Amino acid sequence: MIRAIFFDIDDTLYDSTRLTTMARLNSIRAMIDAGLDYDEKFLYERLYEIIKKFGPNYPRHYNELLKSLGLKEDPKLIASGVVAYEHTKFAYLKPFPRVVPTLLKLKDRYKLGVISNGIAIKQWEKLINLGLHHYFDVVITSEEVGYEKPSKEIFLEALKSLNVKPEESIMVGDNPSTDILGAKSVGMITIRIRKGKRAKIEPKNELEKADFDVENFDEIPKIIDIIEKRHKNTI
Amino acid sequence: MIRAIFFDIDDTLYDSTRLTTMARLNSIRAMIDAGLDYDEKFLYERLYEIIKKFGPNYPRHYNELLKSLGLKEDPKLIASGVVAYEHTKFAYLKPFPRVVPTLLKLKDRYKLGVISNGIAIKQWEKLINLGLHHYFDVVITSEEVGYEKPSKEIFLEALKSLNVKPEESIMVGDNPSTDILGAKSVGMITIRIRKGKRAKIEPKNELEKADFDVENFDEIPKIIDIIEKRHKNTI
Repeated sequence: MIRAIFFDIDDTLYDSTRLTTMARLNSIRAMIDAGLDYDEKFLYERLYEIIKKFGPNYPRHYNELLKSLGLKEDPKLIASGVVAYEHTKFAYLKPFPRVVPTLLKLKDRYKLGVISNGIAIKQWEKLINLGLHHYFDVVITSEEVGYEKPSKEIFLEALKSLNVKPEESIMVGDNPSTDILGAKSVGMITIRIRKGKRAKIEPKNELEKADFDVENFDEIPKIIDIIEKRHKNTI
Repeated sequence: MIRAIFFDIDDTLYDSTRLTTMARLNSIRAMIDAGLDYDEKFLYERLYEIIKKFGPNYPRHYNELLKSLGLKEDPKLIASGVVAYEHTKFAYLKPFPRVVPTLLKLKDRYKLGVISNGIAIKQWEKLINLGLHHYFDVVITSEEVGYEKPSKEIFLEALKSLNVKPEESIMVGDNPSTDILGAKSVGMITIRIRKGKRAKIEPKNELEKADFDVENFDEIPKIIDIIEKRHKNTI
């Protein structure tokens, strides 16, 4: 019997790939509008390299962008990038279609949780902006556990927090090499949602191959019905 | 002849007092909604004390709020406060009525500047959110100058940046003890706009008393006409 369903956040509950793409593009455009006289595509790629180098949570990407162009720290340019990013972020922080009705349906029958790599407050900010912070019985972040997906520890911590066994639990995520591999390695059932930048990436090995693949969120309840029936037939 | 007009930002170009009041209230309400089981008024006052103690730019007000209540750092509660504050901030970061048409009118005839106490990027973020970042020939912040209003240095720096004399320049601001006192002390003409939390505070001495008081932004061009006529009559 299935008792708990765990979800990844980015590219699973909302379109994180589109958000970051559009937010970076809009921030570049705002900086050009504020006087940064460079080609849009050139700046976008330069910013991409800087974010890759310093990590997504580094707070001074735009300062580094100007520095890499040999320019001084112009607060008008930096603020233009920051404000455009923030506004785009809020505009795109919406759940994927059918996430809310599907979670409402699942919530009646199962415990729901989140297992997410990242900083606790930042991941909670996303859930709150998505309007999903009241749906989950537990939210497990790598910052709090001290281990990131695909480490077994973060999945085991999540199972423990809801007092469920791996075989009673489903992990839903977009990333074969973190969500799927990690959940399978502790014995959870896995559903891969083919969304975002990894939608078309094929699993590199058997452990990265999910038990089920879906393209849309509202296919999940039907998959769970199939899983439940198999369970019964096995008994 | 008047050649330049300088403006304060907070409670001059937009309703900073209302923004902070509403953003703090909404952050408290969001934290209560997220599970913080205390009285709204009690929490609001506690938060007010914390912001007074740590300053408005301290990034961990909500962490301190929980700490002061003897609670652990719950990322859900903290993120709820942060997100509600941000959304309210964006909703209220709108210019006072008639600011935009008045600036458009003045921009044809005068150089326009901002003289603001605060962190350069933060003050620019406000101007950008207000949609006013293209209106000013120069933006002078205390962070960049190293002196805060009412110090003479920040006003002299502003005058120098536009290459104008004090008697050719007008300072528009809400705060008698910073905007008015400082601008008068270097010989600028002063217009006090009676907005925000200081609207009803009377000047403590002659230097805090502006040359002109207005209640609304669109009275400014008429006041400047009066000033220009006086100038002519003096010559």
